[in-house]
Amino acid sequence: MKVNKKNYSTIWLENEKIKIIDQTCLPFKFKTEELKSLNDFCIAIKNMKVRGAPLIGITAALGFAKSIIKNPNNSNIEISYSKLLKTRPTAVNLKWALERIKKEILKLPNDLRGKQAMQLATSMRLEDIKNCKKIGENGFKIIKKIFKKRKKTINILTHCNAGWLATVDYGTALSPIFLAKKEKIPLHIWVDETRPRNQGALLTSWELKNENIPHTVIVDNAGGYLMQDGKVDLCIVGSDRTTINGDVCNKIGTYLKALSAYENNVPFYVALPTSTIDENLEDGSLIPIEVRSGNELIELTFNKSQKLGKGCIFLKSTKTFNPAFDVTPAKFITKLITENGICDANINSIKEII
Amino acid sequence: MKVNKKNYSTIWLENEKIKIIDQTCLPFKFKTEELKSLNDFCIAIKNMKVRGAPLIGITAALGFAKSIIKNPNNSNIEISYSKLLKTRPTAVNLKWALERIKKEILKLPNDLRGKQAMQLATSMRLEDIKNCKKIGENGFKIIKKIFKKRKKTINILTHCNAGWLATVDYGTALSPIFLAKKEKIPLHIWVDETRPRNQGALLTSWELKNENIPHTVIVDNAGGYLMQDGKVDLCIVGSDRTTINGDVCNKIGTYLKALSAYENNVPFYVALPTSTIDENLEDGSLIPIEVRSGNELIELTFNKSQKLGKGCIFLKSTKTFNPAFDVTPAKFITKLITENGICDANINSIKEII
Repeated sequence: MKVNKKNYSTIWLENEKIKIIDQTCLPFKFKTEELKSLNDFCIAIKNMKVRGAPLIGITAALGFAKSIIKNPNNSNIEISYSKLLKTRPTAVNLKWALERIKKEILKLPNDLRGKQAMQLATSMRLEDIKNCKKIGENGFKIIKKIFKKRKKTINILTHCNAGWLATVDYGTALSPIFLAKKEKIPLHIWVDETRPRNQGALLTSWELKNENIPHTVIVDNAGGYLMQDGKVDLCIVGSDRTTINGDVCNKIGTYLKALSAYENNVPFYVALPTSTIDENLEDGSLIPIEVRSGNELIELTFNKSQKLGKGCIFLKSTKTFNPAFDVTPAKFITKLITENGICDANINSIKEII
Repeated sequence: MKVNKKNYSTIWLENEKIKIIDQTCLPFKFKTEELKSLNDFCIAIKNMKVRGAPLIGITAALGFAKSIIKNPNNSNIEISYSKLLKTRPTAVNLKWALERIKKEILKLPNDLRGKQAMQLATSMRLEDIKNCKKIGENGFKIIKKIFKKRKKTINILTHCNAGWLATVDYGTALSPIFLAKKEKIPLHIWVDETRPRNQGALLTSWELKNENIPHTVIVDNAGGYLMQDGKVDLCIVGSDRTTINGDVCNKIGTYLKALSAYENNVPFYVALPTSTIDENLEDGSLIPIEVRSGNELIELTFNKSQKLGKGCIFLKSTKTFNPAFDVTPAKFITKLITENGICDANINSIKEII
């Protein structure tokens, strides 16, 4: 997507250097950064310079490849694999990406491993772009159908950031929205702030502003009221892990919006590449939920007279608990939107598209 | 309640001066302030130096009385009435308190009005304290019953601040919790941060800390996950206006927690003085919902190296929408806890206790 009229993706190769957009600075500052060492990659994922299940997967793949180029020994492969895998526990793409590379590479002699790992990682990167574009096309059909019926501005609520910043490009939940804008469907997006890290207010609203899509940021508390009041035509969110029965694990708070959508007859869609589907888990209760530092609630970046700083919005001594994800049971989900098509959130329908 | 070992209420008379705690400074600074002019009272309510339906009502009553003392003419009474009434639209206590005084006062000759208005307002203040204490005793029976069954620490989730700071003393939702603590029932309170003004993280957690009640602040997004995970035994919240059918209008986001409680079989209680019951409204859809400045989402008070300042946590240009309340339909409410007893959230049961 475009930033200041220049095309960007979230992670790319430039003269054999791997570069990312440091998302912790957005929207206040647009900063790119090179990731060199394995440690750089681990920190980028852990500290959420890159985030979003698809992008986490691709970043891990490229970091893994980079490390294998440096040292293709089995022991380094195992160490790199487990270091990267440990960075974040909930998104299944991390494991999916690392497994895919490891499986191929271990079959090869040491001298061919590095090149092949990088080839695999870069092709996974391109595949992610293609898949997200396809998710956009499939999801667009849904928006178009609703627009044909309503014939007025379509109000879409989204939670967190499942835009191009959460993937390599295009995004998942926002991909159909970008396409709908291109196709001139009148849209307005309700953007959940998404505490504690405010990815909605910071990242999603930045993406929508760049594409000139009308949007309004609301606190996470407000979505229920808007749905009761008939102000939301549909919800679209992303997924960090989808179990084979159709349960969706996504950013904390997604579940509350799904409950409210269900209660108010608002269709609730989840857009995801099939790489987030975990065939090994029967249902969402088995997904490990990442608990992040409680300090994320208290210490925020603020902007004062064009200067950025950090400050505490509560007393530093406040005891906090910070689970990062929750699980929305399949029964509250209208449809899953994937690169392979739209399906119901149940095992039979999912098995047909993976 | 006690602050630094000294007894305080939220509003009081001191040598004929009316004083309040300026709640916009808490928990960083404990500051009291005298309200002198009618304008002082209006600003204190509007800018939320005092907030919470019961406290808004008593502040308005005292401000009204003070203004009548200065000028007991009918025209001043009408002007003061309408200025105070306009400060905030949702809580019904404001109107309830003003009506009660106006009705009595207009019957009297001018020279008796001031004294009588102040007498009425101070007796309403004492009545509020008595009612909140009684709400505590009634709500305590519920907590005690649950404790007898569970025989382990009782986890209670609350939203916003319905503690003593929202009333003159004792509180509504927190009143049973303070009493349960006194009666040695082991408790742990999940405190919803309550965006955008963070009354949970700032005020409720301050009150609970002062009373040595174990508590943890969570983002508003997290309550659903905790309920799914069996970590919440009951919810207690306050009410800004309760319609005669049992619908409850309370701080934005209350509805989402009620939906989640219902889905996960967690009992959901609302504690309220009967002064918040609006007999004239058939159901919650008729309640005017206050929309506050969107700047409340963006500009926050932060604490840095012991200094307080203001800063923006999003881009100042972000478009926001900030409804302050939502309505929880009666069907999601287990019981209403009032000073006159516990009742079901329906017209027949409510009529028995008012």
